[in-house]
Amino acid sequence: MQVSALPPNPVELRALIRGGEISTFTTGMAPGHVQANLVILPRDVAFDFLLFCQRNPKPCPLLEVVEAGSVEPKRFAPGADLRYDLPEYRVYRYGELEAEVTDIVDYWRDDMVSFLLGCSFTFDNALMSNGIPLRHIEQGVNVSMFITNIDTEPAGVFSGPMVVSMRPIPADKVVRAVQVTTRFPSVHGSPVHIGDPAAIGIEDINRSDMGDPLEVRKGEVPVFWACGVTPQAVAMSSKPPLMITHSPGHMFITDVRDEDLAVL
Amino acid sequence: MQVSALPPNPVELRALIRGGEISTFTTGMAPGHVQANLVILPRDVAFDFLLFCQRNPKPCPLLEVVEAGSVEPKRFAPGADLRYDLPEYRVYRYGELEAEVTDIVDYWRDDMVSFLLGCSFTFDNALMSNGIPLRHIEQGVNVSMFITNIDTEPAGVFSGPMVVSMRPIPADKVVRAVQVTTRFPSVHGSPVHIGDPAAIGIEDINRSDMGDPLEVRKGEVPVFWACGVTPQAVAMSSKPPLMITHSPGHMFITDVRDEDLAVL
Repeated sequence: MQVSALPPNPVELRALIRGGEISTFTTGMAPGHVQANLVILPRDVAFDFLLFCQRNPKPCPLLEVVEAGSVEPKRFAPGADLRYDLPEYRVYRYGELEAEVTDIVDYWRDDMVSFLLGCSFTFDNALMSNGIPLRHIEQGVNVSMFITNIDTEPAGVFSGPMVVSMRPIPADKVVRAVQVTTRFPSVHGSPVHIGDPAAIGIEDINRSDMGDPLEVRKGEVPVFWACGVTPQAVAMSSKPPLMITHSPGHMFITDVRDEDLAVL
Repeated sequence: MQVSALPPNPVELRALIRGGEISTFTTGMAPGHVQANLVILPRDVAFDFLLFCQRNPKPCPLLEVVEAGSVEPKRFAPGADLRYDLPEYRVYRYGELEAEVTDIVDYWRDDMVSFLLGCSFTFDNALMSNGIPLRHIEQGVNVSMFITNIDTEPAGVFSGPMVVSMRPIPADKVVRAVQVTTRFPSVHGSPVHIGDPAAIGIEDINRSDMGDPLEVRKGEVPVFWACGVTPQAVAMSSKPPLMITHSPGHMFITDVRDEDLAVL
């Protein structure tokens, strides 16, 4: 099904996903609505992970936490079922990828706690609406991601370096990029660094640790934001007995509008 | 000891409190530094309380969570000990006040989790710095507090109505009051309501549920902010086997500056 032919309504989209009619990337679907990262963990590590997110709101902006025993994110998507309503999931055992599946009903346990985290789609939309060009979107590639020398604040079993995404921003638009993203703390908020990559432990701006390399042209400044890959990387490195996430790019589409997340 | 004779440094102040030389209200101490509310709960309800705070950031703005087994808030006051460094504590068993004490070493258990929450002192300072007069401070009384018909988002055993504080604001300063407090989401942030008290279930603006009544004069608008009494009231109503808090007005003085909490 072409994205352009899809219903713009998140409720109808989730119904198509649940029915197996959509199992692709969600990029561009339900424009103007928040899409979310998903991390599902057993209850016995959920307090530590919740605390990790509370201590590290820039890389781990919590949108909603669904307690053990429930599969419905009542605030962001009433009526949805997190076991079926994403196009693709990844299942990890002790940090190792075990399966990629289109529903997780066979893996679900009543002690699983679900975390919805902000996703950069909201963020990129806000930058573009403000006339800030984004190279990775123009080129149809993934944003550049780097493991930095910035430590996250540990919590229980969870710790590790912050992962950042890099966008080359024209020098005369850097201030505006700070202002625009400051409005959206729940999708990573303001940058963590502007300029010299070496200052945050990045040796070569042309060799990203994840995602695709992006050229920083003359007159552009590399601007770095905390990246939602951080919580997944941190959760995985703790090797929990079971962890379920969305597959990259296969996000959870919520009913909430991007602008509803703006703090001002 | 007169407040005016006290050292302005939070570290020195906490040493005097720990040594028993200060056991009074902390109002006005260490000007420019964040003071915090304290709630200490057993680990088995800590996840629910943390989640409650995450879901209700306006009444329950978390500054720091200190895990079970630690007494040191490393982020807001490295070197401090939460068992000694507040001038007065209240100890509750199953929701009933059992003791008011100047340290909690006899009550401490290794399964206790400590929550530091934003306090309106920071918030009031920011309003006053912006030329917004505050009647409760001018009159040296407590702010008016009301139980509203606004439900908090429940989490586990925790639920209940939102408590708000009311400040009468001159009509021509209401917009500025919104802007100023929006900068400080970690001390309750922007108002939850402006104007008609009945709209949030307040029958008589002259009869507050807690604190002191404050006259709303001609040309003034009652402005309502989420109040830090909410988490304590909610925690207490769940009647945990043990809960320890600061005594009203006897706050935890941190090393962090008020302006460090501003989001922009």
